Order: sequence, then structure tokens, then C-alpha cells
Amino acid sequence: MQKLSMLYEGKAKRVYETDIKGVYIVSYKDDATAFNGKKRGSISGKGAINNQITNHLMQLLAKEGIPTHFVQQLSETETAVKAVRIIPLEVIVRSIAAGSLSQRLGLEEGTRLASTVLEFCYKRDDLGDPLVNSSHIKALGLATEEELELIKRYSLAVNDILSDYLAKVGIALIDFKLEFGVTEDGMLVLADEISPDTCRFWDVKTGRKLDKDRFRRDLGDVEEAYHEVMQRLLGRS
Amino acid sequence: MQKLSMLYEGKAKRVYETDIKGVYIVSYKDDATAFNGKKRGSISGKGAINNQITNHLMQLLAKEGIPTHFVQQLSETETAVKAVRIIPLEVIVRSIAAGSLSQRLGLEEGTRLASTVLEFCYKRDDLGDPLVNSSHIKALGLATEEELELIKRYSLAVNDILSDYLAKVGIALIDFKLEFGVTEDGMLVLADEISPDTCRFWDVKTGRKLDKDRFRRDLGDVEEAYHEVMQRLLGRS
Ligand SMILES: Nc1ncnc2c1ncn2[C@@H]1O[C@H](COP(=O)(O)OP(=O)(O)O)[C@@H](O)[C@H]1O
Ligand SMILES: Nc1ncnc2c1ncn2[C@@H]1O[C@H](COP(=O)(O)OP(=O)(O)O)[C@@H](O)[C@H]1O
Ligand SMILES: [Mg+2]
Ligand SMILES: [Mg+2]
Repeated sequence: MQKLSMLYEGKAKRVYETDIKGVYIVSYKDDATAFNGKKRGSISGKGAINNQITNHLMQLLAKEGIPTHFVQQLSETETAVKAVRIIPLEVIVRSIAAGSLSQRLGLEEGTRLASTVLEFCYKRDDLGDPLVNSSHIKALGLATEEELELIKRYSLAVNDILSDYLAKVGIALIDFKLEFGVTEDGMLVLADEISPDTCRFWDVKTGRKLDKDRFRRDLGDVEEAYHEVMQRLLGRS
Repeated sequence: MQKLSMLYEGKAKRVYETDIKGVYIVSYKDDATAFNGKKRGSISGKGAINNQITNHLMQLLAKEGIPTHFVQQLSETETAVKAVRIIPLEVIVRSIAAGSLSQRLGLEEGTRLASTVLEFCYKRDDLGDPLVNSSHIKALGLATEEELELIKRYSLAVNDILSDYLAKVGIALIDFKLEFGVTEDGMLVLADEISPDTCRFWDVKTGRKLDKDRFRRDLGDVEEAYHEVMQRLLGRS
């Protein structure tokens, strides 16, 4: 497979065209940003870790019946994925209150939610990714009603599958963000990444944060936490 | 009917107990606030106008099958209403983008929405009335699923009824906020007020704002606009 021109560069990854129709290459960077790009830095080794964790979890989800964009890992930091038209929604699934939810709704961080919370944010950096509901999504034409129903169903299923899986390695899945896209042949698939950048992972026993909050909140030992998650999931770091 | 002790004082109204079981008296004030209480002022005659407009519209809605808290107007500024436990949600119905929606989603004010937008804000002044979706409402126990379904149904019906009615007097209903409550005998009813404080009314021909935005945005002729709405709806001012 040939890596051709770069299509776009995001905050954490670059996306390249390839010589194979319907296939892109995603290249993970060590760059770290937070608070809608206001905080910037770098986490050494993050690109390789996030690429490998994402691929590990995507393959697990595929086995459980969730269609994903994963095609094949090419190197420590690069992966071939199905080219998709990204649906401009960040889908957030929450089991325990943390971060923006805690602040917005006045819930102490760590409070278990009586039922799973599912949020949609309109992927628009210039607007700060505002929270939207299904009526906004419909009025703005961000997704069809069928796509939205499928997105909800897949997102809750991903939560169940990953929560169970992570619990086995002593990690509590607090919340996470997903992105979905539509492939060239019209199939809705899970895209983007699933990593300590996009999930809140807390050690089940100690409550220690093993995710990007260590960077956001300057908690220290950021690299170490990313390695710890990789170690627990893939048995190597 | 005897007015007894004051139960609570809000930004625009006072609520009193009465000697009749299940009945409160609402007393409308001229006080005006905006931006979650940060801007304060007074609009002379507003209490009387909002009371009379609310009662007029609530009676219209009742005739069209929407249960409301309205019992009887007692004076220009006071009305007997069914005592309810207010559901802590501000329900916002939008046909045309304006105000916070325009800002949050980057839509020019005045853009007609492709479909009606229905928003729920958690009524919590200390949190700035944050936007919530049905999963937050469920997780926080703010309303039951049955209540929420009924609230959605009634809110869209109110939009249809009021839009048609207001169009006849040359007013475009841009958006509005409703509150619902549960009576002592367990019935979900439309409560609170429907007035130029809680709706955006634009003159159909000129686009002139006939609502609280004149106060919020210092457009001048605030009292005159409130009188104009009253005049068009009740034929007096
Ligand atoms: N399979 C895919 N096909 C096309 N684009 C994708 C795919 N997976 C992810 N993307 C997009 O790649 C871009 C780069 O990723 P990232 O650096 O994480 O961006 P962001 O700055 O939006 O977080 C994002 O816009 C993401 O939605
Ligand atoms: N029928 C009713 N029974 C009990 N409370 C009501 C009823 N109708 C409205 N209320 C409540 O009366 C309070 C006073 O109204 P208002 O001054 O508009 O309050 P706010 O400052 O919340 O806007 C509000 O909390 C409102 O929800
Ligand atoms: Mg990203
Ligand atoms: Mg009010």
C-alpha cells in the first residue's frame, strides 16, 4: 500500500490517501492538546500507544459485532482504515460523572450516574464543539434519523463491551468519546480512535487516573499512565 | 379566596398559598432580569401585561386540549393557578434561530430551522440553567419517561397552536420557553407564564422585535413593545 498525499491534519493524527480505493492511512502523533486547543504539549510515545490501543479495542469490538473502520496496522504509529465521511458529531458515553458533565450539572466527580448518559457534540472547533440534541441534529442535517439510531445503539453496545473488558484488567471506564463515519459503500462504522486521549480510565482499586486528564490537569506521570494502559491491554509497553 | 403566606419569590413573579387546597396565587412583578440575573431593571406595566397575555394564551391552549394551571384571573397582576410541583426543566421550542441557539451553533439570527428544535434546560440558576438531553433527565431523575414524552407532545402542540394564532395578528413566533408541573392529583399541566418575557415575538412585516430582547439588548421602546403585543392579542393596552 502506498501512502499518497495528506488529506488533513488534526490535533492528534494525520490522514493520508492511499493507492487503494476506499482506504486511508491514519498516522498518530505525540502532540497533545486540551480545552479546545488552548493547552498544547507533547506526550512522548503517545502516538504509538494510542495507535496500538485503538487497533486492539477496534478488533475486539469488531469481533462483538460493531462495524469499525479498522483495516490493518502498518507500523507502531500507522494504520490502514476504511475511508469514511465523518459524521460531524462527537458521541460521548458516560457511566460516572467527570469533567464537563460534573461542572455543568453540579455533580461531584466520581458520582455513578443512575443511567448511562449519551451526549452529542457538534464537531466544530470554531464553536467549541457545542452540545446538541436529536432535534438540533435533525434541523442542521448532521445525521439522518436512521444513522442517529444506529449511532446510539452502537455507542451503548461499545460501552457494555469495553466496560466489561477493561474491568478484567482493573480499569474502570468512566466515559469516552466516539466518532462514526460512512464508508464509500454507505456503511456506518465506528471511526477515529479509542485511547487514553479519548476515554477516562481510572484504576479500579486506587482510582488513579490513567488518561489524558493527567495532561489536562498537570497531574504528572503522563507517559507512565499511557504505558500502564498499553501494558494492561496488550501485555507490552 | 384568601391570599396567605408567600411561598417563593422568583425573578418575575411571587407565588402565594391560598385558603383553597391545591390553589396558589401568582402575582406578576414589573422587575426585569436577563442573562441569568446579571442584568436587572424594571419595565413599567410589565406585570399587568404579562399576567393578562399569559391568561389569554393559557385559555386558548386549554380550549385546544392542552391542560394548564390557569384557574381564574383575580386582578390585572394576580391570577389563581393550580398549585403544582414544577418539573425543573425549561422547555424551549424554536422555529427560527435566535439568541443562544444562534450563538452556540453559528446560525445567523432569523434563519428558519429545517425542523422544530426542542431544548431542555435544567432549571438551576446556580449552574446557569445548563442544556440537558433525555439521558441527563433520566440519570438525574428530573422527570419520568412518561412525563417527558407528554412534555414533548404538549410543547410541539403549543407551538402549532400559538404560531397559527399569533400569525393572525401579524406576530411571528420565533421561539419560547415553557414550564410544566404536576398538580396535587398527579396531572401534568402547563404552568408558569407565556409572555413577551418568555417568547420571541417578531412583527411579521417589519421584523421588529416585540419582546424582552428590547430590554436585553437595550433596543429602546421596551414598554411600548409589550403594550403592542397586549393590544394585538387582547384589543386593549
Ligand atoms: N476512517 C476515517 N476516515 C476519514 N477521516 C477519519 C477517519 N477516522 C478519523 N478521521 C478523522 O481524522 C481527523 C484527524 O483526527 P484527529 O487528529 O483526532 O482530529 P481532531 O483534531 O478533530 O481531534 C479527524 O477529523 C477525524 O474525524
Ligand atoms: N402553578 C404553579 N405552581 C407552583 N409554582 C409555579 C407555578 N407556576 C409557576 N411557578 C413557579 O413560580 C416561580 C416564580 O416565577 P418566576 O418569577 O418566573 O421565577 P424564575 O425566577 O424562576 O423565572 C418559578 O419557580 C415558577 O416555576
Ligand atoms: Mg481527535
Ligand atoms: Mg420565570
